[in-house]
Amino acid sequence: MPDVFVTRQVHFSAAHRLYNPTLSDEENDRLFGLCNNPNGHGHNYVIEVTVVGSLDPLTGYVIDLKELKDLCEVEILSKVDHKHLNLDVPFLRDINPTAENLAVRFFEILEPHLQRPNARLHAVKVWETDRNHAEYRGDR
Amino acid sequence: MPDVFVTRQVHFSAAHRLYNPTLSDEENDRLFGLCNNPNGHGHNYVIEVTVVGSLDPLTGYVIDLKELKDLCEVEILSKVDHKHLNLDVPFLRDINPTAENLAVRFFEILEPHLQRPNARLHAVKVWETDRNHAEYRGDR
Amino acid sequence: MPDVFVTRQVHFSAAHRLYNPTLSDEENDRLFGLCNNPNGHGHNYVIEVTVVGSLDPLTGYVIDLKELKDLCEVEILSKVDHKHLNLDVPFLRDINPTAENLAVRFFEILEPHLQRPNARLHAVKVWETDRNHAEYRGDR
Amino acid sequence: MPDVFVTRQVHFSAAHRLYNPTLSDEENDRLFGLCNNPNGHGHNYVIEVTVVGSLDPLTGYVIDLKELKDLCEVEILSKVDHKHLNLDVPFLRDINPTAENLAVRFFEILEPHLQRPNARLHAVKVWETDRNHAEYRGDR
Amino acid sequence: MPDVFVTRQVHFSAAHRLYNPTLSDEENDRLFGLCNNPNGHGHNYVIEVTVVGSLDPLTGYVIDLKELKDLCEVEILSKVDHKHLNLDVPFLRDINPTAENLAVRFFEILEPHLQRPNARLHAVKVWETDRNHAEYRGDR
Amino acid sequence: MPDVFVTRQVHFSAAHRLYNPTLSDEENDRLFGLCNNPNGHGHNYVIEVTVVGSLDPLTGYVIDLKELKDLCEVEILSKVDHKHLNLDVPFLRDINPTAENLAVRFFEILEPHLQRPNARLHAVKVWETDRNHAEYRGDR
Repeated sequence: MPDVFVTRQVHFSAAHRLYNPTLSDEENDRLFGLCNNPNGHGHNYVIEVTVVGSLDPLTGYVIDLKELKDLCEVEILSKVDHKHLNLDVPFLRDINPTAENLAVRFFEILEPHLQRPNARLHAVKVWETDRNHAEYRGDR
Repeated sequence: MPDVFVTRQVHFSAAHRLYNPTLSDEENDRLFGLCNNPNGHGHNYVIEVTVVGSLDPLTGYVIDLKELKDLCEVEILSKVDHKHLNLDVPFLRDINPTAENLAVRFFEILEPHLQRPNARLHAVKVWETDRNHAEYRGDR
Repeated sequence: MPDVFVTRQVHFSAAHRLYNPTLSDEENDRLFGLCNNPNGHGHNYVIEVTVVGSLDPLTGYVIDLKELKDLCEVEILSKVDHKHLNLDVPFLRDINPTAENLAVRFFEILEPHLQRPNARLHAVKVWETDRNHAEYRGDR
Repeated sequence: MPDVFVTRQVHFSAAHRLYNPTLSDEENDRLFGLCNNPNGHGHNYVIEVTVVGSLDPLTGYVIDLKELKDLCEVEILSKVDHKHLNLDVPFLRDINPTAENLAVRFFEILEPHLQRPNARLHAVKVWETDRNHAEYRGDR
Repeated sequence: MPDVFVTRQVHFSAAHRLYNPTLSDEENDRLFGLCNNPNGHGHNYVIEVTVVGSLDPLTGYVIDLKELKDLCEVEILSKVDHKHLNLDVPFLRDINPTAENLAVRFFEILEPHLQRPNARLHAVKVWETDRNHAEYRGDR
Repeated sequence: MPDVFVTRQVHFSAAHRLYNPTLSDEENDRLFGLCNNPNGHGHNYVIEVTVVGSLDPLTGYVIDLKELKDLCEVEILSKVDHKHLNLDVPFLRDINPTAENLAVRFFEILEPHLQRPNARLHAVKVWETDRNHAEYRGDR
């Protein structure tokens, strides 16, 4: 069966602050500008999760996209939606919540759940706004 | 000259928390649910400002939309973009930052600047997400 | 308190066929063309529901948009999503499912649930595609 | 039968220059800035045409939106698409092609074709970009 | 000449039902849930066709995108637009019309028409909704 | 550190004409049709610039996307926005301004500015409309 890439988009709204606690305030301001506002700012984030694999001959699916959506809901959205990413999310506690770091962390969280005989996680893309996004495809 | 409605869209990213300080924590939770997260959450907000008036025969404009954009920049965006709406914005300090209250407050801020011989502010629309918005057209 | 218009967008996917059973096949073909395919075709529909009213001073809401979304879910989406509008939906059985008729019928269904001291249903807009929509504002 | 608003969106790509030939070059520069580039610039324009009327009991339509699309095609798109609005379009020759003037002129062109027993033209909206638009509803 | 990827998006509206006739009704319900509604449901589908190749020095094109659009029109859209994918489309008769299977089948149909000295079909992407899509890049 | 792809979208509005001066008028008409209108037409162009690289451990960035936006502003937008691409832009003077040629030229302009220890330019994508785009990934 040929390989096909299937993608599911999910959404969440969250606050965050770009800030490296090992640096001085001046250095944080220089590096992150407006994004370093101490009380935070926020976004409507979009996550696009892509799985690649061969088609299951029984279903014509690579993976049931409803299952992929539910996995995102349980593993990610329930923990980040309507939260402050720096303060409320255990799996983000030690990192600066840039779109890049979110894409890597979300990939690492989802990948173990997506190791199937016919399929595997291909990429996670994270939009902060309609104009900015980061994509991680694993360390291959 | 006939009346025409002209609209300019602007964007900002901010954190907020839905919260009424005169109510108990339980009551706030009941009324605002996830939106009452103590550390806040956030959105990519869109504001749509509509001015109605007759066309200036010299320009073919109701109002120069670049002027309208600059007005939004100075009076609103410079104060709310990359901020926490409950904590960082003087003109929002005493209200619960729902989309409805933002639309009313932004309208009140812009209206005095848009009283022209040929034109006036018609409406301010505020999107919190692609799926939710509030519009205020003044107290007429 | 001033009047504000609040809007919630919801989505569903359905099949339909434009067809008037009181007319001949030739007449149906002439009136509805491709949309009269006997086995039906389908759309990703968008519904935009707008409520107008004064702000509740306790919440800063006209109406909780989550309540509005849940109302749409129970009264409309649970009955039309992933259905054939001509064959599967009791409240559409006797009408031709044009966007116009859907907007009127959805308005009639929602209006009795949205008669509040401070607010009422203002409009229901139905998109068949990004390029086509119909809006009904009641028989005022 | 109740009144319903139906809308069809159409698209075209054109060059234009904002310029008033009765004014000096300096005055044109001051009023129109970048939009006064002598060789012109361009946009992907969107036109949204809204007709209001009662539903035809035979069809459940206010007006067949395919007919509305074809009318836009013949009367407007065939004359403006892939053209320079200042130089190539007879019905725009004597006006400055702002979004406002386009909305008024397109309305005036379409209105005589949309005087039906059950329906009439309600509004024409013209987008220059996703962020700017003008709407004309006639001189009522 | 360098290789460039060029893409044309086309749209169609269709009904479909996810259903494997070799399985029991219970098994179909378990696998496809709402998507297995016997009377079908539907979508506004988007197809994105990408061709890769070197630039023709005469035109600066990889391929004339109008030619690519016309090819999609003749080979695909004329057969699936405003149809029921399970019942009306000969080239889909023996497969379950998931987005994955559509992407593979559309690729197989278009590829023989896109074998040029300077270019070849790279990928076909099919969206069922704004949030779900499948992409096939051939069996390389 | 793992490799991540980061993308920034920027926008400009410009006129252009598809035309090869070494060919006859008849040949230009045959090859470019409506796009060969002598007075030009125009688009709202979108450019998507993607940089790939490892995360800077200090910032969690591949590259500061504000720096990437400013680079696009200085090197590209200031020269093409509100211009006629065939007549006003020195770096496009000798090429036919197809989306393909724009993608290649923009890539060549940006690449020397994006050679970092941890990162490099990956791709430039140019949309003429929502339905057409070209992407160049360098001559690798």
